[in-house]
Amino acid sequence: MRKVYVVGAASTRYGKFDSSARELVVDACAAALDEAGVEPKAVGGHFIGNAFSVAEKQGHLGPLVNTTLGMPEAPSYTIETACASGSSAFREAFVNVAGGFADVMLASGVERVSQLDTITATSFFAYGSDFTFEGANGCSFPGLYATMARSYFQKYGATEEDLAHIAVKNHENGALNPKAHLQKRIKVEDVLKSMVVASPLKLYDACPFSDGAAALVLASEDVAKRLGDSRVEILGSGRAGTIATLQDRPDLTMIPSTRLAADQAFKMAKIERKDVDLSEVHDCFTIAEAVALEDLGYVKRGEGAKAAREGLTARDGKLPVNPSGGLKSKGHPVGATGIGQIVEAYEQLLGRSGPRQVPDAEVALTHNIGATGGSCGVHLLGV
Amino acid sequence: MRKVYVVGAASTRYGKFDSSARELVVDACAAALDEAGVEPKAVGGHFIGNAFSVAEKQGHLGPLVNTTLGMPEAPSYTIETACASGSSAFREAFVNVAGGFADVMLASGVERVSQLDTITATSFFAYGSDFTFEGANGCSFPGLYATMARSYFQKYGATEEDLAHIAVKNHENGALNPKAHLQKRIKVEDVLKSMVVASPLKLYDACPFSDGAAALVLASEDVAKRLGDSRVEILGSGRAGTIATLQDRPDLTMIPSTRLAADQAFKMAKIERKDVDLSEVHDCFTIAEAVALEDLGYVKRGEGAKAAREGLTARDGKLPVNPSGGLKSKGHPVGATGIGQIVEAYEQLLGRSGPRQVPDAEVALTHNIGATGGSCGVHLLGV
Repeated sequence: MRKVYVVGAASTRYGKFDSSARELVVDACAAALDEAGVEPKAVGGHFIGNAFSVAEKQGHLGPLVNTTLGMPEAPSYTIETACASGSSAFREAFVNVAGGFADVMLASGVERVSQLDTITATSFFAYGSDFTFEGANGCSFPGLYATMARSYFQKYGATEEDLAHIAVKNHENGALNPKAHLQKRIKVEDVLKSMVVASPLKLYDACPFSDGAAALVLASEDVAKRLGDSRVEILGSGRAGTIATLQDRPDLTMIPSTRLAADQAFKMAKIERKDVDLSEVHDCFTIAEAVALEDLGYVKRGEGAKAAREGLTARDGKLPVNPSGGLKSKGHPVGATGIGQIVEAYEQLLGRSGPRQVPDAEVALTHNIGATGGSCGVHLLGV
Repeated sequence: MRKVYVVGAASTRYGKFDSSARELVVDACAAALDEAGVEPKAVGGHFIGNAFSVAEKQGHLGPLVNTTLGMPEAPSYTIETACASGSSAFREAFVNVAGGFADVMLASGVERVSQLDTITATSFFAYGSDFTFEGANGCSFPGLYATMARSYFQKYGATEEDLAHIAVKNHENGALNPKAHLQKRIKVEDVLKSMVVASPLKLYDACPFSDGAAALVLASEDVAKRLGDSRVEILGSGRAGTIATLQDRPDLTMIPSTRLAADQAFKMAKIERKDVDLSEVHDCFTIAEAVALEDLGYVKRGEGAKAAREGLTARDGKLPVNPSGGLKSKGHPVGATGIGQIVEAYEQLLGRSGPRQVPDAEVALTHNIGATGGSCGVHLLGV
């Protein structure tokens, strides 16, 4: 297995745009290739994370994007694993370079949903659940994550206020991120007073629907060395699934695919949890970040919800989590999310994150969930 | 790069079914695993080719299917490259085993469209084109392939009757395939008298909209040897793209991605065109088979259209093409098509194809196109 590096990274702003998905992802890819100093013709293939482009009446994004980029001959693939589409696309680009099938690959992700009304957008998202048993019965993702939160509260005595601190912390970081969708600080009271979406989760416990795109250029060691110093090594990669529907799981306070994927990634990287300097974690709802900290093996069971409240996961805490603002504040353009997390890791590890920089960051972890954990991707990156 | 084998293969019948996509693909996967003698828990990952499951309000198929199969922990990926989704899924399963990331992988494909009316189904298909410039202006795939046919006729003097012979030949084969959607023989007059869809293409020049699923189990050499004799080696794999829209191409009588993907596959396999005993070729329209024979390097430019008429591509000809019946007669369940072609190759190479068996088949080629060639996958298999 060959060493693989990220040698270029870029993203659009996250938010609401008139541009189509194809335009957004072309912008991100062109910027990433430019930053890497890689000619489009050198790219051996392109994986695009995307879930809903059909809502814009456009499938088969790859050839359109590759043609515009000036690399029509490169094979392309749209990968969909619901909200984990981005990390899945990254994983396969990594596998292709590590396995010697290509020296340079492009991994991107994109989503555009702001043209849809809230009900249609929520429906499209719910197609990522087991729609027959969950979505069609009215249990879309707010309901599913609310069920997990309720179960977690019951088991560990955590509170809505604990979760509110997670939202406050991520908005604190996102306010410093010029690419973030919701660049504003909020207070615990704002969260607690916000509209109930699915009790105990409120509007400010949830990430927004965002448009946006992100892209990464991956390269073999030889190519990376030739390109110069702006490179980050992919230390470990893990991908796993778990029982698809919540109703069939023995325990609703954990997502087993996170643990499996993380164990794979740490094993490949040959490093320990304590070696990680910052983490971008899938906080589609505040409860998801709490559970992820436990599933990733950072804190003991039952201690994830209070980590933000106690300052552990603050940018200047012992375990910085979501310095980008996370899905909660930076935004959640579904197919782009997993790629965007790695863009943040890349910039942090190269010391380019300005006022939200985590000092002396040498190892970063990214964690990306599809649906309620039916898909999970965890990656470790280092300089 | 490790050697990789297909050790199990299965498909549903192709046709019109009440079953959902998830049910169809579970059936095919379970049968393929059973045929291979592989425990679901041994599967390291699952790539599913699918383009339109969102038309059934269901994305994120992998975790649902893997959970039902009894392998919820295996990571899954839905891959979409329009009508080439199946070969793209197969390619990545191959890359994962060849690169040492897994010893056993599952590659499947599925589509269900028969619940849609013809206009809706045609629209969904057209999302695989450059919808802004092609589909939205009324140029769906029959029109795009008709444009190619018209250009080909003009350049080479081929006729509608030449193309009709391709349809007749593929129906002749499909009539012997118990899994085929349209199991009936047709005559040249039937094709010429059928309804014009997009001149010069008529209804019988076109493949049907089909439901169906197909699945393959891939394994490393060690695992394949342990499982016994029912194994076929993957000799070569090629994937390429080309300029997305027809209007931007310099020549409409060829699909350059086919030549690129074929060259890659033959180079990897270290064999020649003349070594191939049978080919499953992407004949979504009769003109597509004619062009593919030239792009694959089997015949000279301008000679593809008359190959069927002259008997070259008959089952007992020198260059048997589409012994399964092809997309034209066997059917075209989009995401399943590329996988189903390899199921046919596997069965032919193991001598299990009954009355449509190509005698002494030792090497087979499969060729799968997305849209008008924006994606192409070519694979070579051998015993």
